[in-house]
Amino acid sequence: MNNKIINIGILTVSDRASQGIYEDISGKEILKVLDEYLTSKWNAVTAIIPDSYEDIKFKLMQMTDKEDCCLVFTTGGTGPAARDITPEATEVVCGRMLPGFGELMRYESLKYVPTAILSRQTAGIRNQSLIVNLPGKPKSIRECMQAVFPAIPYCIDLIGGPYLECNTDNISVFRPK
Amino acid sequence: MNNKIINIGILTVSDRASQGIYEDISGKEILKVLDEYLTSKWNAVTAIIPDSYEDIKFKLMQMTDKEDCCLVFTTGGTGPAARDITPEATEVVCGRMLPGFGELMRYESLKYVPTAILSRQTAGIRNQSLIVNLPGKPKSIRECMQAVFPAIPYCIDLIGGPYLECNTDNISVFRPK
Amino acid sequence: MNNKIINIGILTVSDRASQGIYEDISGKEILKVLDEYLTSKWNAVTAIIPDSYEDIKFKLMQMTDKEDCCLVFTTGGTGPAARDITPEATEVVCGRMLPGFGELMRYESLKYVPTAILSRQTAGIRNQSLIVNLPGKPKSIRECMQAVFPAIPYCIDLIGGPYLECNTDNISVFRPK
Repeated sequence: MNNKIINIGILTVSDRASQGIYEDISGKEILKVLDEYLTSKWNAVTAIIPDSYEDIKFKLMQMTDKEDCCLVFTTGGTGPAARDITPEATEVVCGRMLPGFGELMRYESLKYVPTAILSRQTAGIRNQSLIVNLPGKPKSIRECMQAVFPAIPYCIDLIGGPYLECNTDNISVFRPK
Repeated sequence: MNNKIINIGILTVSDRASQGIYEDISGKEILKVLDEYLTSKWNAVTAIIPDSYEDIKFKLMQMTDKEDCCLVFTTGGTGPAARDITPEATEVVCGRMLPGFGELMRYESLKYVPTAILSRQTAGIRNQSLIVNLPGKPKSIRECMQAVFPAIPYCIDLIGGPYLECNTDNISVFRPK
Repeated sequence: MNNKIINIGILTVSDRASQGIYEDISGKEILKVLDEYLTSKWNAVTAIIPDSYEDIKFKLMQMTDKEDCCLVFTTGGTGPAARDITPEATEVVCGRMLPGFGELMRYESLKYVPTAILSRQTAGIRNQSLIVNLPGKPKSIRECMQAVFPAIPYCIDLIGGPYLECNTDNISVFRPK
Protein backbone atom coordinates (compact mmCIF):
# COMPACT_ATOMS: atom_id res chain seq x y z
CA MET A 1 0.00 0.00 0.00
CA ASN A 2 2.92 2.28 0.74
CA ASN A 3 6.44 1.55 -0.41
CA LYS A 4 8.30 4.25 1.47
CA ILE A 5 10.52 2.78 4.17
CA ILE A 6 9.14 3.65 7.58
CA ASN A 7 11.88 4.76 9.92
CA ILE A 8 11.10 4.92 13.62
CA GLY A 9 13.54 6.40 16.12
CA ILE A 10 14.15 4.84 19.52
CA LEU A 11 16.18 7.21 21.64
CA THR A 12 17.36 5.95 25.02
CA VAL A 13 18.32 8.81 27.33
CA SER A 14 20.33 7.56 30.28
CA ASP A 15 23.68 8.55 31.73
CA ARG A 16 24.36 5.00 32.85
CA ALA A 17 23.11 3.09 29.81
CA SER A 18 25.11 5.43 27.54
CA GLN A 19 28.26 4.56 29.49
CA GLY A 20 27.54 0.86 29.22
CA ILE A 21 27.02 0.61 33.01
CA TYR A 22 23.82 -1.20 32.33
CA GLU A 23 22.00 -2.70 29.40
CA ASP A 24 19.44 -0.68 27.49
CA ILE A 25 16.40 -2.76 28.40
CA SER A 26 14.11 0.24 27.79
CA GLY A 27 15.01 0.73 24.15
CA LYS A 28 14.65 -3.02 23.64
CA GLU A 29 11.16 -2.98 25.11
CA ILE A 30 10.05 -0.21 22.72
CA LEU A 31 11.42 -2.23 19.81
CA LYS A 32 9.61 -5.33 21.00
CA VAL A 33 6.28 -3.53 21.41
CA LEU A 34 6.59 -1.92 17.97
CA ASP A 35 7.28 -5.34 16.44
CA GLU A 36 4.08 -6.61 18.02
CA TYR A 37 2.03 -3.62 16.83
CA LEU A 38 3.26 -2.93 13.29
CA THR A 39 2.66 -5.01 10.20
CA SER A 40 4.15 -2.32 7.93
CA LYS A 41 7.79 -2.94 7.13
CA TRP A 42 9.78 -0.66 9.40
CA ASN A 43 13.32 0.13 10.34
CA ALA A 44 14.51 1.01 13.85
CA VAL A 45 16.91 3.94 14.15
CA THR A 46 18.36 3.65 17.63
CA ALA A 47 20.71 5.64 19.82
CA ILE A 48 21.73 5.67 23.48
CA ILE A 49 22.81 9.04 24.85
CA PRO A 50 23.41 10.67 28.25
CA ASP A 51 20.91 12.98 30.01
CA SER A 52 22.26 16.03 28.22
CA TYR A 53 20.01 18.77 26.85
CA GLU A 54 22.27 19.38 23.85
CA ASP A 55 22.69 15.70 23.02
CA ILE A 56 18.95 15.01 23.18
CA LYS A 57 18.17 18.06 21.05
CA PHE A 58 20.80 17.07 18.50
CA LYS A 59 19.66 13.46 18.26
CA LEU A 60 15.98 14.35 17.97
CA MET A 61 16.78 16.75 15.14
CA GLN A 62 19.02 14.20 13.46
CA MET A 63 16.46 11.38 13.68
CA THR A 64 13.62 13.55 12.35
CA ASP A 65 15.44 15.76 9.82
CA LYS A 66 18.24 13.55 8.47
CA GLU A 67 17.22 10.00 9.24
CA ASP A 68 13.65 10.54 8.12
CA CYS A 69 11.94 9.11 11.20
CA CYS A 70 8.21 9.86 11.11
CA LEU A 71 8.00 8.81 14.73
CA VAL A 72 10.52 8.95 17.55
CA PHE A 73 10.09 7.42 20.98
CA THR A 74 12.37 8.56 23.77
CA THR A 75 12.80 6.67 27.01
CA GLY A 76 14.23 8.12 30.21
CA GLY A 77 14.89 11.54 31.65
CA THR A 78 11.29 12.58 32.33
CA GLY A 79 11.36 12.60 36.14
CA PRO A 80 11.86 15.51 38.57
CA ALA A 81 15.56 14.89 39.29
CA ALA A 82 18.20 17.46 38.39
CA ARG A 83 19.56 15.47 35.42
CA ASP A 84 16.13 14.76 33.91
CA ILE A 85 15.83 17.02 30.90
CA THR A 86 14.14 15.03 28.12
CA PRO A 87 10.80 16.96 28.10
CA GLU A 88 12.58 20.33 27.79
CA ALA A 89 14.76 19.07 24.93
CA THR A 90 11.67 17.63 23.24
CA GLU A 91 9.70 20.84 23.57
CA VAL A 92 12.45 23.00 22.12
CA VAL A 93 12.67 20.97 18.88
CA CYS A 94 8.89 20.73 18.39
CA GLY A 95 6.77 23.27 16.55
CA ARG A 96 3.64 22.24 18.38
CA MET A 97 3.00 20.25 21.53
CA LEU A 98 0.34 17.58 22.10
CA PRO A 99 -0.49 17.79 25.81
CA GLY A 100 -3.00 14.96 25.58
CA PHE A 101 -0.22 12.37 25.31
CA GLY A 102 1.36 13.27 28.65
CA GLU A 103 -2.03 13.56 30.32
CA LEU A 104 -3.13 10.11 29.15
CA MET A 105 0.18 8.40 29.93
CA ARG A 106 0.19 9.80 33.47
CA TYR A 107 -3.46 8.90 33.92
CA GLU A 108 -2.71 5.39 32.72
CA SER A 109 0.39 4.98 34.91
CA LEU A 110 -1.57 6.26 37.92
CA LYS A 111 -3.55 3.02 37.81
CA TYR A 112 -0.34 1.26 38.87
CA VAL A 113 1.75 3.76 40.86
CA PRO A 114 0.88 7.06 42.60
CA THR A 115 4.31 8.41 41.61
CA ALA A 116 3.06 8.62 38.00
CA ILE A 117 2.39 12.32 38.64
CA LEU A 118 6.15 12.87 38.90
CA SER A 119 6.56 12.11 35.22
CA ARG A 120 6.85 15.17 33.03
CA GLN A 121 6.59 13.22 29.78
CA THR A 122 5.14 14.97 26.78
CA ALA A 123 4.80 14.68 22.99
CA GLY A 124 5.04 17.06 20.09
CA ILE A 125 5.30 17.52 16.35
CA ARG A 126 8.49 18.49 14.55
CA ASN A 127 7.64 19.16 10.90
CA GLN A 128 6.35 15.77 9.68
CA SER A 129 7.49 13.77 12.70
CA LEU A 130 5.84 12.88 15.97
CA ILE A 131 8.06 12.67 19.07
CA VAL A 132 6.73 10.88 22.17
CA ASN A 133 8.45 10.68 25.55
CA LEU A 134 8.04 7.31 27.25
CA PRO A 135 9.00 6.39 30.83
CA GLY A 136 12.18 4.53 31.68
CA LYS A 137 10.83 1.27 33.08
CA PRO A 138 9.95 -1.47 30.54
CA LYS A 139 6.66 -2.26 32.28
CA SER A 140 5.60 1.41 32.19
CA ILE A 141 6.78 1.73 28.61
CA ARG A 142 4.42 -1.02 27.54
CA GLU A 143 1.50 0.44 29.52
CA CYS A 144 2.03 3.89 28.02
CA MET A 145 2.47 2.64 24.47
CA GLN A 146 -0.72 0.63 24.78
CA ALA A 147 -2.53 3.77 25.92
CA VAL A 148 -1.35 6.20 23.25
CA PHE A 149 -0.52 4.05 20.22
CA PRO A 150 -4.14 3.79 19.00
CA ALA A 151 -3.96 7.49 18.08
CA ILE A 152 -0.48 7.48 16.54
CA PRO A 153 -1.05 6.17 12.98
CA TYR A 154 -3.79 8.77 12.40
CA CYS A 155 -1.58 11.49 13.84
CA ILE A 156 1.14 10.56 11.37
CA ASP A 157 -1.42 10.60 8.53
CA LEU A 158 -2.41 14.14 9.57
CA ILE A 159 1.14 15.48 9.59
CA GLY A 160 1.93 13.98 6.20
CA GLY A 161 3.93 10.94 7.21
CA PRO A 162 3.71 7.36 5.92
CA TYR A 163 0.68 5.12 6.41
CA LEU A 164 1.31 2.76 9.35
CA GLU A 165 -0.42 -0.59 9.21
CA CYS A 166 -0.95 -2.48 12.43
CA ASN A 167 -1.68 -5.93 13.74
CA THR A 168 -5.21 -5.60 15.07
CA ASP A 169 -4.73 -8.68 17.25
CA ASN A 170 -2.21 -6.74 19.28
CA ILE A 171 -3.35 -3.12 19.12
CA SER A 172 -6.57 -1.46 18.17
CA VAL A 173 -5.73 1.54 16.03
CA PHE A 174 -8.31 4.19 15.18
CA ARG A 175 -8.67 6.41 12.12
CA PRO A 176 -11.81 8.60 12.00
CA LYS A 177 -13.68 8.40 8.67
CA MET B 1 -31.86 40.09 37.01
CA ASN B 2 -29.30 41.54 34.63
CA ASN B 3 -30.20 43.84 31.77
CA LYS B 4 -26.88 43.95 30.01
CA ILE B 5 -27.02 42.23 26.64
CA ILE B 6 -24.98 39.03 26.75
CA ASN B 7 -22.83 38.68 23.65
CA ILE B 8 -21.29 35.30 22.93
CA GLY B 9 -18.80 34.82 20.14
CA ILE B 10 -18.82 31.77 17.89
CA LEU B 11 -15.68 31.69 15.81
CA THR B 12 -15.43 29.00 13.14
CA VAL B 13 -11.83 28.43 12.06
CA SER B 14 -11.67 26.49 8.82
CA ASP B 15 -9.97 27.12 5.51
CA ARG B 16 -12.72 25.36 3.63
CA ALA B 17 -15.75 26.71 5.48
CA SER B 18 -14.36 30.24 5.14
CA GLN B 19 -14.16 29.78 1.36
CA GLY B 20 -17.72 28.49 1.22
CA ILE B 21 -16.50 25.02 0.14
CA TYR B 22 -18.65 23.54 2.82
CA GLU B 23 -21.30 24.68 5.23
CA ASP B 24 -20.38 25.76 8.74
CA ILE B 25 -22.17 22.97 10.60
CA SER B 26 -19.79 23.40 13.58
CA GLY B 27 -20.72 27.00 14.34
CA LYS B 28 -24.39 26.05 13.97
CA GLU B 29 -24.03 23.26 16.49
CA ILE B 30 -22.49 25.62 19.07
CA LEU B 31 -25.39 28.03 18.52
CA LYS B 32 -27.91 25.23 18.93
CA VAL B 33 -26.34 23.94 22.15
CA LEU B 34 -26.19 27.46 23.62
CA ASP B 35 -29.87 27.96 22.79
CA GLU B 36 -30.66 24.79 24.71
CA TYR B 37 -28.52 25.81 27.70
CA LEU B 38 -29.19 29.53 28.17
CA THR B 39 -32.37 31.16 29.43
CA SER B 40 -30.67 34.58 29.63
CA LYS B 41 -31.29 36.70 26.55
CA TRP B 42 -28.16 36.44 24.45
CA ASN B 43 -26.81 37.51 21.11
CA ALA B 44 -24.54 35.41 18.89
CA VAL B 45 -21.57 37.18 17.33
CA THR B 46 -20.37 34.86 14.58
CA ALA B 47 -17.51 34.74 12.13
CA ILE B 48 -15.97 32.18 9.79
CA ILE B 49 -12.28 32.61 9.10
CA PRO B 50 -9.40 30.58 7.61
CA ASP B 51 -6.77 28.72 9.69
CA SER B 52 -4.58 31.80 9.91
CA TYR B 53 -2.77 32.80 13.10
CA GLU B 54 -3.22 36.52 12.41
CA ASP B 55 -6.90 36.22 11.50
CA ILE B 56 -7.74 34.16 14.59
CA LYS B 57 -5.83 36.57 16.85
CA PHE B 58 -7.54 39.56 15.28
CA LYS B 59 -11.03 38.08 15.53
CA LEU B 60 -10.58 36.94 19.13
CA MET B 61 -9.44 40.42 20.10
CA GLN B 62 -12.28 42.03 18.17
CA MET B 63 -14.96 39.78 19.69
CA THR B 64 -13.71 40.29 23.25
CA ASP B 65 -12.53 43.92 23.13
CA LYS B 66 -14.87 45.61 20.66
CA GLU B 67 -17.91 43.39 20.43
CA ASP B 68 -18.14 42.86 24.17
CA CYS B 69 -18.33 39.06 24.13
CA CYS B 70 -17.97 37.69 27.68
CA LEU B 71 -17.52 34.24 26.18
CA VAL B 72 -16.09 33.08 22.87
CA PHE B 73 -16.18 29.53 21.54
CA THR B 74 -13.89 28.63 18.70
CA THR B 75 -14.32 25.52 16.58
CA GLY B 76 -11.62 23.95 14.39
CA GLY B 77 -7.88 24.17 14.06
CA THR B 78 -6.92 22.29 17.21
CA GLY B 79 -5.41 19.16 15.66
CA PRO B 80 -1.76 18.30 14.96
CA ALA B 81 -1.77 19.19 11.23
CA ALA B 82 0.43 21.97 9.86
CA ARG B 83 -2.46 24.41 9.33
CA ASP B 84 -3.95 23.88 12.84
CA ILE B 85 -3.08 26.98 14.81
CA THR B 86 -6.12 27.88 16.94
CA PRO B 87 -4.59 27.01 20.37
CA GLU B 88 -1.50 29.15 19.70
CA ALA B 89 -3.63 32.12 18.59
CA THR B 90 -5.83 31.65 21.67
CA GLU B 91 -2.89 31.52 24.05
CA VAL B 92 -1.30 34.68 22.68
CA VAL B 93 -4.41 36.80 23.29
CA CYS B 94 -5.08 35.42 26.78
CA GLY B 95 -3.64 36.80 29.99
CA ARG B 96 -4.08 33.52 31.82
CA MET B 97 -4.72 29.97 30.68
CA LEU B 98 -7.14 27.45 32.18
CA PRO B 99 -5.54 24.05 31.50
CA GLY B 100 -8.43 22.21 33.16
CA PHE B 101 -10.70 22.85 30.17
CA GLY B 102 -8.44 21.10 27.67
CA GLU B 103 -7.76 18.26 30.09
CA LEU B 104 -11.47 17.62 30.71
CA MET B 105 -12.48 17.92 27.06
CA ARG B 106 -9.80 15.43 26.00
CA TYR B 107 -10.73 13.11 28.85
CA GLU B 108 -14.37 13.30 27.80
CA SER B 109 -13.65 12.78 24.09
CA LEU B 110 -11.44 9.79 24.96
CA LYS B 111 -14.59 7.95 26.00
CA TYR B 112 -15.55 7.95 22.32
CA VAL B 113 -12.32 8.07 20.28
CA PRO B 114 -8.69 7.28 21.13
CA THR B 115 -7.61 10.09 18.80
CA ALA B 116 -8.91 12.59 21.38
CA ILE B 117 -5.32 12.94 22.60
CA LEU B 118 -4.44 14.59 19.28
CA SER B 119 -6.55 17.60 20.18
CA ARG B 120 -4.58 20.54 21.52
CA GLN B 121 -7.68 22.51 22.57
CA THR B 122 -7.34 24.90 25.45
CA ALA B 123 -9.12 27.80 27.18
CA GLY B 124 -8.06 31.09 28.67
CA ILE B 125 -9.09 34.47 30.02
CA ARG B 126 -8.67 37.71 28.11
CA ASN B 127 -9.57 40.58 30.45
CA GLN B 128 -13.23 39.92 31.28
CA SER B 129 -13.80 37.29 28.62
CA LEU B 130 -13.45 33.52 28.57
CA ILE B 131 -12.26 31.89 25.35
CA VAL B 132 -12.79 28.14 24.88
CA ASN B 133 -11.52 26.03 21.97
CA LEU B 134 -13.97 23.37 20.87
CA PRO B 135 -13.33 20.52 18.41
CA GLY B 136 -14.48 20.68 14.80
CA LYS B 137 -17.00 17.84 14.65
CA PRO B 138 -20.59 18.67 15.78
CA LYS B 139 -20.87 15.49 17.85
CA SER B 140 -17.61 16.25 19.70
CA ILE B 141 -18.64 19.89 20.13
CA ARG B 142 -21.75 18.82 21.98
CA GLU B 143 -19.85 16.31 24.16
CA CYS B 144 -17.23 18.90 25.09
CA MET B 145 -19.75 21.66 25.81
CA GLN B 146 -21.70 19.30 28.03
CA ALA B 147 -18.51 18.55 29.96
CA VAL B 148 -17.24 22.09 30.52
CA PHE B 149 -20.33 24.29 30.46
CA PRO B 150 -21.33 23.59 34.09
CA ALA B 151 -18.28 25.63 35.19
CA ILE B 152 -18.64 28.48 32.69
CA PRO B 153 -21.28 30.76 34.29
CA TYR B 154 -19.34 30.83 37.57
CA CYS B 155 -16.12 31.50 35.69
CA ILE B 156 -17.74 34.49 34.01
CA ASP B 157 -19.00 35.71 37.40
CA LEU B 158 -15.42 35.54 38.73
CA ILE B 159 -13.93 37.53 35.88
CA GLY B 160 -16.57 40.26 36.16
CA GLY B 161 -18.82 39.34 33.26
CA PRO B 162 -22.62 39.16 33.10
CA TYR B 163 -24.70 36.66 35.07
CA LEU B 164 -25.66 33.75 32.80
CA GLU B 165 -28.92 31.99 33.61
CA CYS B 166 -29.41 28.47 32.35
CA ASN B 167 -32.11 25.94 31.66
CA THR B 168 -31.56 23.34 34.36
CA ASP B 169 -33.50 20.77 32.34
CA ASN B 170 -30.71 20.84 29.75
CA ILE B 171 -27.56 21.63 31.71
CA SER B 172 -26.64 21.48 35.33
CA VAL B 173 -24.68 24.61 36.16
CA PHE B 174 -22.77 25.00 39.41
CA ARG B 175 -21.96 28.09 41.45
CA PRO B 176 -20.24 27.48 44.81
CA LYS B 177 -21.88 29.33 47.72
CA MET C 1 17.00 7.65 60.33
CA ASN C 2 17.59 11.26 59.30
CA ASN C 3 18.50 13.99 61.75
CA LYS C 4 18.16 16.98 59.50
CA ILE C 5 15.26 19.20 60.57
CA ILE C 6 12.52 19.02 57.96
CA ASN C 7 11.14 22.45 57.18
CA ILE C 8 7.87 22.66 55.28
CA GLY C 9 6.50 25.95 54.06
CA ILE C 10 2.82 26.82 54.23
CA LEU C 11 2.14 29.95 52.24
CA THR C 12 -1.35 31.43 52.44
CA VAL C 13 -2.04 33.77 49.54
CA SER C 14 -5.09 35.91 50.20
CA ASP C 15 -5.70 39.65 50.13
CA ARG C 16 -8.25 39.39 52.90
CA ALA C 17 -6.51 36.90 55.19
CA SER C 18 -3.31 38.95 54.93
CA GLN C 19 -5.20 42.04 56.13
CA GLY C 20 -6.70 40.11 59.03
CA ILE C 21 -10.21 40.45 57.55
CA TYR C 22 -10.64 36.77 58.05
CA GLU C 23 -8.87 33.95 59.72
CA ASP C 24 -6.41 31.78 57.80
CA ILE C 25 -8.36 28.55 57.97
CA SER C 26 -6.63 27.27 54.81
CA GLY C 27 -3.10 27.39 56.20
CA LYS C 28 -4.37 25.71 59.37
CA GLU C 29 -5.91 22.90 57.38
CA ILE C 30 -2.62 22.21 55.58
CA LEU C 31 -0.83 22.12 58.93
CA LYS C 32 -3.42 19.73 60.32
CA VAL C 33 -3.21 17.35 57.37
CA LEU C 34 0.60 17.34 57.51
CA ASP C 35 0.45 16.51 61.21
CA GLU C 36 -1.75 13.55 60.40
CA TYR C 37 0.52 12.37 57.57
CA LEU C 38 4.07 12.87 58.87
CA THR C 39 5.84 10.90 61.57
CA SER C 40 9.17 12.60 60.79
CA LYS C 41 9.84 15.55 63.07
CA TRP C 42 9.01 18.64 61.06
CA ASN C 43 8.78 22.37 61.42
CA ALA C 44 6.14 24.58 59.80
CA VAL C 45 7.37 27.79 58.18
CA THR C 46 4.24 29.86 57.64
CA ALA C 47 3.35 33.17 56.05
CA ILE C 48 0.20 34.98 54.99
CA ILE C 49 0.58 37.38 52.09
CA PRO C 50 -1.66 39.26 49.62
CA ASP C 51 -2.35 38.14 46.03
CA SER C 52 0.70 39.92 44.73
CA TYR C 53 3.01 38.42 42.11
CA GLU C 54 6.11 39.99 43.66
CA ASP C 55 5.21 38.98 47.22
CA ILE C 56 4.49 35.38 46.26
CA LYS C 57 7.71 35.13 44.25
CA PHE C 58 9.73 36.62 47.10
CA LYS C 59 8.23 34.36 49.75
CA LEU C 60 8.62 31.20 47.66
CA MET C 61 12.29 32.04 47.09
CA GLN C 62 12.78 32.86 50.75
CA MET C 63 11.15 29.68 52.00
CA THR C 64 13.10 27.45 49.62
CA ASP C 65 16.48 29.24 49.47
CA LYS C 66 16.86 30.79 52.93
CA GLU C 67 14.53 28.87 55.18
CA ASP C 68 15.50 25.50 53.78
CA CYS C 69 12.00 24.21 53.08
CA CYS C 70 12.15 20.99 51.03
CA LEU C 71 8.44 21.33 50.39
CA VAL C 72 6.16 24.35 50.16
CA PHE C 73 2.39 24.28 49.91
CA THR C 74 0.60 27.39 48.78
CA THR C 75 -3.12 27.94 49.26
CA GLY C 76 -5.21 30.48 47.36
CA GLY C 77 -4.88 32.54 44.21
CA THR C 78 -5.28 29.73 41.67
CA GLY C 79 -8.65 30.71 40.19
CA PRO C 80 -9.44 32.67 37.01
CA ALA C 81 -10.10 36.05 38.70
CA ALA C 82 -7.94 39.07 37.94
CA ARG C 83 -6.12 38.98 41.30
CA ASP C 84 -5.35 35.23 41.12
CA ILE C 85 -1.66 34.97 40.30
CA THR C 86 -0.23 32.13 42.40
CA PRO C 87 0.45 29.69 39.50
CA GLU C 88 2.36 32.35 37.52
CA ALA C 89 4.50 33.24 40.55
CA THR C 90 5.12 29.56 41.18
CA GLU C 91 6.15 28.86 37.60
CA VAL C 92 8.61 31.73 37.48
CA VAL C 93 10.58 30.50 40.51
CA CYS C 94 10.65 26.85 39.40
CA GLY C 95 13.28 25.28 37.18
CA ARG C 96 10.99 22.50 36.06
CA MET C 97 7.22 22.02 36.25
CA LEU C 98 5.33 18.87 37.19
CA PRO C 99 2.06 19.07 35.24
CA GLY C 100 0.81 15.80 36.71
CA PHE C 101 0.07 17.45 40.06
CA GLY C 102 -2.37 19.99 38.63
CA GLU C 103 -3.97 17.36 36.40
CA LEU C 104 -4.56 14.96 39.29
CA MET C 105 -5.80 17.64 41.70
CA ARG C 106 -8.31 18.94 39.15
CA TYR C 107 -9.38 15.40 38.28
CA GLU C 108 -9.87 14.68 41.99
CA SER C 109 -11.77 17.91 42.68
CA LEU C 110 -14.01 17.24 39.66
CA LYS C 111 -15.51 14.36 41.61
CA TYR C 112 -17.03 16.98 43.92
CA VAL C 113 -17.51 20.17 41.90
CA PRO C 114 -17.63 20.86 38.13
CA THR C 115 -15.90 24.19 38.75
CA ALA C 116 -12.68 22.26 39.49
CA ILE C 117 -11.62 22.97 35.90
CA LEU C 118 -11.34 26.67 36.81
CA SER C 119 -8.38 25.93 39.05
CA ARG C 120 -5.02 26.65 37.48
CA GLN C 121 -3.03 25.02 40.29
CA THR C 122 0.33 23.53 39.42
CA ALA C 123 3.54 22.24 41.02
CA GLY C 124 7.21 22.55 40.28
CA ILE C 125 10.77 22.04 41.46
CA ARG C 126 13.02 24.86 42.61
CA ASN C 127 16.52 23.42 43.16
CA GLN C 128 15.96 20.86 45.93
CA SER C 129 12.45 21.98 46.87
CA LEU C 130 9.02 20.95 45.67
CA ILE C 131 6.33 23.66 45.50
CA VAL C 132 2.67 22.59 45.25
CA ASN C 133 -0.31 24.91 44.78
CA LEU C 134 -3.36 23.85 46.75
CA PRO C 135 -6.88 25.27 46.48
CA GLY C 136 -8.27 27.80 48.97
CA LYS C 137 -11.09 25.85 50.59
CA PRO C 138 -10.14 23.55 53.51
CA LYS C 139 -12.26 20.70 52.19
CA SER C 140 -10.61 20.88 48.76
CA ILE C 141 -7.19 21.22 50.36
CA ARG C 142 -7.65 17.92 52.13
CA GLU C 143 -8.95 16.18 49.00
CA CYS C 144 -6.03 17.42 46.92
CA MET C 145 -3.39 16.57 49.54
CA GLN C 146 -4.82 13.08 49.83
CA ALA C 147 -4.52 12.69 46.05
CA VAL C 148 -0.97 13.94 45.54
CA PHE C 149 0.80 13.30 48.84
CA PRO C 150 1.52 9.60 48.12
CA ALA C 151 4.04 10.74 45.47
CA ILE C 152 5.65 13.56 47.46
CA PRO C 153 8.18 11.77 49.71
CA TYR C 154 9.68 9.95 46.71
CA CYS C 155 9.78 13.20 44.75
CA ILE C 156 11.74 14.81 47.56
CA ASP C 157 14.10 11.81 47.63
CA LEU C 158 14.72 12.28 43.89
CA ILE C 159 15.55 15.97 44.17
CA GLY C 160 17.95 15.39 47.04
CA GLY C 161 15.81 16.50 49.98
CA PRO C 162 15.31 14.84 53.37
CA TYR C 163 13.65 11.46 53.85
CA LEU C 164 10.00 11.98 54.90
CA GLU C 165 8.50 9.26 57.06
CA CYS C 166 4.74 8.95 57.16
CA ASN C 167 1.96 7.47 59.21
CA THR C 168 0.68 4.66 57.04
CA ASP C 169 -2.61 4.62 58.94
CA ASN C 170 -3.37 8.05 57.51
CA ILE C 171 -1.66 8.12 54.13
CA SER C 172 -0.29 5.47 51.85
CA VAL C 173 3.04 6.70 50.54
CA PHE C 174 4.82 5.00 47.65
CA ARG C 175 8.50 4.66 46.87
CA PRO C 176 9.37 2.44 43.86
CA LYS C 177 12.08 -0.09 44.56
